[in-house]
Amino acid sequence: MEKLFIYNTASRKKEEFIAQVENHAGMYVCGPTVYGDAHLGHSRPAITFDLLFRYLTYIGYKVRYVRNITDVGHLENDADEGEDKIGKKARIAQLEPMEVVQYYTNRYRENMRQLNVLPPSIEPQASGHIIEQQAMVDQILKTGFAYEVNGSVYFDVEKYNTKYHYGKLSGRVLEDLYSTTRELDGQSEKKNSFDFALWKKANPEHIMQWPSKWSEGFPGWHLECSVMSTKYLGEVFDIHGGGLDLMFPHHECEIAQSVAANGHESVKYWMHNNMITINGQKMGKSLGNFITLDELFSGSHQLLEKTYHPMTIRFFILQAHYRNPLDFSNEALQAAEKGLDRLFNALKTLHKISENGTSSAFDIKKWRDKCFDAINDDLNTPILIAHLFDAVKFINSVAAGSAQITGDDLILLRKLMNDIIFSILGLKNTSENTALDEKFDDVVSLLLEIRQEAKKDKNWSLADKIRDELLERGIVIKDTKDGYEWSFK
Amino acid sequence: MEKLFIYNTASRKKEEFIAQVENHAGMYVCGPTVYGDAHLGHSRPAITFDLLFRYLTYIGYKVRYVRNITDVGHLENDADEGEDKIGKKARIAQLEPMEVVQYYTNRYRENMRQLNVLPPSIEPQASGHIIEQQAMVDQILKTGFAYEVNGSVYFDVEKYNTKYHYGKLSGRVLEDLYSTTRELDGQSEKKNSFDFALWKKANPEHIMQWPSKWSEGFPGWHLECSVMSTKYLGEVFDIHGGGLDLMFPHHECEIAQSVAANGHESVKYWMHNNMITINGQKMGKSLGNFITLDELFSGSHQLLEKTYHPMTIRFFILQAHYRNPLDFSNEALQAAEKGLDRLFNALKTLHKISENGTSSAFDIKKWRDKCFDAINDDLNTPILIAHLFDAVKFINSVAAGSAQITGDDLILLRKLMNDIIFSILGLKNTSENTALDEKFDDVVSLLLEIRQEAKKDKNWSLADKIRDELLERGIVIKDTKDGYEWSFK
Repeated sequence: MEKLFIYNTASRKKEEFIAQVENHAGMYVCGPTVYGDAHLGHSRPAITFDLLFRYLTYIGYKVRYVRNITDVGHLENDADEGEDKIGKKARIAQLEPMEVVQYYTNRYRENMRQLNVLPPSIEPQASGHIIEQQAMVDQILKTGFAYEVNGSVYFDVEKYNTKYHYGKLSGRVLEDLYSTTRELDGQSEKKNSFDFALWKKANPEHIMQWPSKWSEGFPGWHLECSVMSTKYLGEVFDIHGGGLDLMFPHHECEIAQSVAANGHESVKYWMHNNMITINGQKMGKSLGNFITLDELFSGSHQLLEKTYHPMTIRFFILQAHYRNPLDFSNEALQAAEKGLDRLFNALKTLHKISENGTSSAFDIKKWRDKCFDAINDDLNTPILIAHLFDAVKFINSVAAGSAQITGDDLILLRKLMNDIIFSILGLKNTSENTALDEKFDDVVSLLLEIRQEAKKDKNWSLADKIRDELLERGIVIKDTKDGYEWSFK
Repeated sequence: MEKLFIYNTASRKKEEFIAQVENHAGMYVCGPTVYGDAHLGHSRPAITFDLLFRYLTYIGYKVRYVRNITDVGHLENDADEGEDKIGKKARIAQLEPMEVVQYYTNRYRENMRQLNVLPPSIEPQASGHIIEQQAMVDQILKTGFAYEVNGSVYFDVEKYNTKYHYGKLSGRVLEDLYSTTRELDGQSEKKNSFDFALWKKANPEHIMQWPSKWSEGFPGWHLECSVMSTKYLGEVFDIHGGGLDLMFPHHECEIAQSVAANGHESVKYWMHNNMITINGQKMGKSLGNFITLDELFSGSHQLLEKTYHPMTIRFFILQAHYRNPLDFSNEALQAAEKGLDRLFNALKTLHKISENGTSSAFDIKKWRDKCFDAINDDLNTPILIAHLFDAVKFINSVAAGSAQITGDDLILLRKLMNDIIFSILGLKNTSENTALDEKFDDVVSLLLEIRQEAKKDKNWSLADKIRDELLERGIVIKDTKDGYEWSFK
């Protein structure tokens, strides 16, 4: 099996991935809070951990990938006060909260399908695990790291920090939090403002609530991930992923909850993808640069010059290393679009060319090793993609007759290119449309054949007519030394 | 608003549909138990109630449509003994039960998408509503219609029947059930064999279990529908649908549970679709005629002569009235396929023809009324579709120049045909492929234009070449009086 190294946020270094159970990998990633359309920011963790899911599977792991749907308990401003995000949307739209949840979950899944992100093995909903969350609150109360006030239960961060280390993942220091977090007003039930809710008594306006021994209420937002990850992956599991914005407080609180309840941590490797900016700015509703994936795919946002295919977005994201920030701009997306076209054109060429020599001008086996070294080095896709373009150059040289390839190397190169492009990177041909696509190719080829014959017969008017009329229909003919090629304008 | 009449299984007659809340319709339909691929039998309730969902929406209702996913508590043989269907699959496949659930739920949703069945407004999972189910068990224990034995809770049918009427939906008589149901062995905890579990204490081999005041256990299968329907639609709601096979005992038990807990029934209109047979036989694994939807769409079952497009299945099902039995056979499916083609060809023609007279040979308004009379008469789609084919005949006559249509009627007919075919029946053009499809049409038209010119120039060899080569590529040219038409072979 390939030796994969991944950067562990907890240790702040690259570590070899060693699974808890041989040949099995358990992986939990924080999914969306489904109260609005998925936007650019959602695409990066989805694609990053889809890459990891695909790669672990490719190198032989049986992967159990859990990605949750947050459908309750996520309050506005991510704090412990205010209205539930989904409840608020439901109130405004005059819908039952679960209608809001279903609507946006369906749209999220459709966006994921468009981005060729595989569905996770399990996609649990927070509202579907209330009993399990109540059991964990009970356990934390029992170990003494939580306190109950007026029907709500809060995690006692200060007490936890006397025995364990709150802040170990994010590097935050509790002493600093005293001064940087919002001061408690006289009404607060919390001992300290950095304490967080495990169970909240519901206000009358709160639509979603369940009975419990403490109150009719609902679970705190951080709880679901601790509960559902260990329910489906075990008390200790391999990988926990998510966006860098979730590291504090969300993931820090997850660690505290698990340690308080079980006496030990659950996660072996913490992985965080970096953020996306737009034209150098942070995304935000007030900045007018908040672009949903649907808007991106349909070009219907004022900042967009054109529509962008989901595969262009996927390729663009993979062209950067997941731990680096990534800036979206029309220029950058159009460059990615061109690159992706070049890649797929070369792949098409690769399946057309024949062996043409007894030795190859390109060391395929060495190239293969470089490709896997890149991906094994903390999923270094920009380097991997650079290697792919070395192969593209070589393929085009072979097609032009200026480089040689042996039969064996041709077979190997075809397999490796397919494996890396489709199985590992999860790309798809943007013009892929299976049956109709092939028929289309057939019919255009017939037209081009008729044009060739017309040229042979010196019937220039027919030959020109075909060229011009196809151009009018968005199809460009390029005459080549061997005949012709066509492409969409 | 249209006056819709639906057959109420409870009253055994057609009744006018009167919504509980004006302009709002609440509708609950029993969804799949997700432990295997969806088969032919799943397609009929899905399409029947999708039709109702679409039609209610079309005539102006705001519909809340709840269709559940059964992911726990459904034991083998639908009885109260034996292994959980999903748990068993999980054990055999060495998977976590929720992986089995997710896998088959994803596949079910994909099949529904292929059949153009709209996703319901809410798709709740049984395992996500354990607290709510426990609350209903509590309520039924409190009203005295259930008893606890060794950590399990059973519904007391005999006692219920002294006060209420067990059997009112299905027409079963309790006296007969004494003799027809399996005799209790000495080990049974039930008072009578027709009692059913509300909560079952879990055996050690049972993977899915939750804490409760009675035992670590799981809810009985019938409970989830009573609980989730009233949670999301209210204690009294409009429509409950499902297959005829679920009428007894499942729906009968649902009624008993709701009445026992709340003192009154929940459902105003009970609707049941009839069953599907294959070549005259009941579907069954042992009979070798158990065809999954994937097999049907890919033609990969020995009983199938070819692949069938999901729209052919949908059209085939809509051609029968939902309350009649329906027999699948290759002949019947191929007839449906041809009918669907004729319908869509006429629709294409309808959008090409122009007004050609000052009066129409067909009374469109009267035809419109007949169409809506049919669908308003308990969703009589076979009659509706027969009316559509009257319009097809007329459209083809107009295209052939043998009938007249006015401009106003043309506009009205186009709107009505589109509304009925797409919005109400939920059909799609099987060759629909949007952008590429249009381009394809463009390119074939160019070829046909070149062929016309070749014929004018008496260049017969080119004209024939185009015809023959297109035919080889599966495209048939038909010369018409005005020029030409083409279609896929």
